[in-house]
Amino acid sequence: MAMQNASFDPQAFRAALGTFTTGVTIITTQAEDGSPVGITANSFNSVSLNPPLVLWSLSKNARSLPVFSNGKHWNVHVLSTEQEKLSGRFATQGEDKFAEVQLDNGVSEAPLLQDCTARFQCRTAFQYEGGDHVIFVGEVLAFDHSDRAPLAFQSGQYALATRKPRSELRLATTPPPPECSYTEDLLGYLLGRGHYQVLNTLRRMVSNQQLDEQAFFILSVLCIRDNLSLEEINTFVSYTGHEVTLAGMRFLERQHLVAIEGDADQLRFVLTANGRELSLQQLALAKVVEEELSAKLGSADAQALKVLLKRLIVVSDPGLPDLWAPR
Amino acid sequence: MAMQNASFDPQAFRAALGTFTTGVTIITTQAEDGSPVGITANSFNSVSLNPPLVLWSLSKNARSLPVFSNGKHWNVHVLSTEQEKLSGRFATQGEDKFAEVQLDNGVSEAPLLQDCTARFQCRTAFQYEGGDHVIFVGEVLAFDHSDRAPLAFQSGQYALATRKPRSELRLATTPPPPECSYTEDLLGYLLGRGHYQVLNTLRRMVSNQQLDEQAFFILSVLCIRDNLSLEEINTFVSYTGHEVTLAGMRFLERQHLVAIEGDADQLRFVLTANGRELSLQQLALAKVVEEELSAKLGSADAQALKVLLKRLIVVSDPGLPDLWAPR
Repeated sequence: MAMQNASFDPQAFRAALGTFTTGVTIITTQAEDGSPVGITANSFNSVSLNPPLVLWSLSKNARSLPVFSNGKHWNVHVLSTEQEKLSGRFATQGEDKFAEVQLDNGVSEAPLLQDCTARFQCRTAFQYEGGDHVIFVGEVLAFDHSDRAPLAFQSGQYALATRKPRSELRLATTPPPPECSYTEDLLGYLLGRGHYQVLNTLRRMVSNQQLDEQAFFILSVLCIRDNLSLEEINTFVSYTGHEVTLAGMRFLERQHLVAIEGDADQLRFVLTANGRELSLQQLALAKVVEEELSAKLGSADAQALKVLLKRLIVVSDPGLPDLWAPR
Repeated sequence: MAMQNASFDPQAFRAALGTFTTGVTIITTQAEDGSPVGITANSFNSVSLNPPLVLWSLSKNARSLPVFSNGKHWNVHVLSTEQEKLSGRFATQGEDKFAEVQLDNGVSEAPLLQDCTARFQCRTAFQYEGGDHVIFVGEVLAFDHSDRAPLAFQSGQYALATRKPRSELRLATTPPPPECSYTEDLLGYLLGRGHYQVLNTLRRMVSNQQLDEQAFFILSVLCIRDNLSLEEINTFVSYTGHEVTLAGMRFLERQHLVAIEGDADQLRFVLTANGRELSLQQLALAKVVEEELSAKLGSADAQALKVLLKRLIVVSDPGLPDLWAPR
């Protein structure tokens, strides 16, 4: 075995192991002196349904090993996507991990954390030799389970798992005929349809306020970065396919949303108090639309969608100016 | 323990366990008669770095239990997102699992599958009692690891894990000032910017062919569903914010892309051979753009983005007509 180990690059071995996706758990117990103990672990897995058994491994170097070895009871908490910070806290030595953490009452004295995706209250059934780790197998005495989306972990990073529907999700009621090369599965189609549908939901709300989409874009830009020339506005808006004209700006001026300043050859556009208020109202509506959609998608999937859209924007960025950059 | 079990709803217990996200593995060995044996398992996990140990559990009812119990060597294959079908095949009893499966040569006689995310070639180190399962702990004799995105599993469904960058992915070079309510994190903004950027990449290619975006949409619709009235075309296109006019259709007729048939009050529009060819050329370009973006995102993330966009489209669908529906 020594020779085999010698040929092992530990970093490469870790990297290979890390490709196996896991959830993230915090495992807690109570020390003999009554103090709460907890660590973050992703080595959890289910073992047996009847009797109900689960397992996890703990490093023989872990400071908490004696406590877990001597204790009879421990709780496994499958963390939700909202508990990434808690995961980090319990993965770090020395912090007062349980400071301001609310606990529930469980079947044992082991601390029972709140707001998890699932919890398993266990009694040690076996402790097995596992090289530089001890394998703890626990009998599950009680468990519960919420709708909170679970946090995942892959290749050393937190992750959001998007479940693939068992049968492929189809927008059309019937698959297109095989000779049709246009399918709903085209990324460009999905992006366009998703965007326009969300935009139209917003547009219906905005149209009650007598403002069109172009005005929405202009006010948004000025709300982030005020006092711009027409040319500057267009550098921020042109990627949408809209071209902002002086006539369009004059229209907004007549509605007291924008003030025009400067000489005729160097006009600059400034948001009025009215304009700012309307823009913030629109933003609030956009956030309402987003919240409704997030609730329907589930917050983890909504978050994953945003992460992926940002990555898409980065890889397809033609070099748009940074709207939020300081000047 | 019997009483504890009695209070357990096995389905609820399974559901709670299932919230812990896992990867998907196929574990293989060779039977004494030389025949290959393999099963799909998600109970895998790493145990020890030095010595290098991994574990997984196998039901005591499994037909392959005697083979694994008596065999010394087995291989763990962490499956990639491309290997969902293989996972299904090895999860199903009775199929000729190894039919047409290419194998590599490994350190033992245990079958070594190809095209996986990672592979661990193991020798049994321990077999432990685990209720209705046996826990196999293996010493890793050899391993390798590719760039293929790993398949995940959560709550009984295959899943795609989107890794969250360690530090938040930012489009802007600096965070917006705290008083700015408009942030780049708005779903509507991300959808619009992502869509327009991809559309503009395509538009640049299409504009070489002297066709605008509206013509692109019209030809696409007619390519999927030919012989439509102007009103029908608009039911399919209007969600994009474009309104198709008779003048626009006459323009396409002059370019020999569309033929106009029927009486003046019942005009119908039909794609010409030229029009169909141009439309398919555009589609091919759209697929090139998509392939380039998928390569940059990684195929698993591109796939996850499409799954999430479909879900977004479903939850925000105002009731658009089904373009692909048969008539």
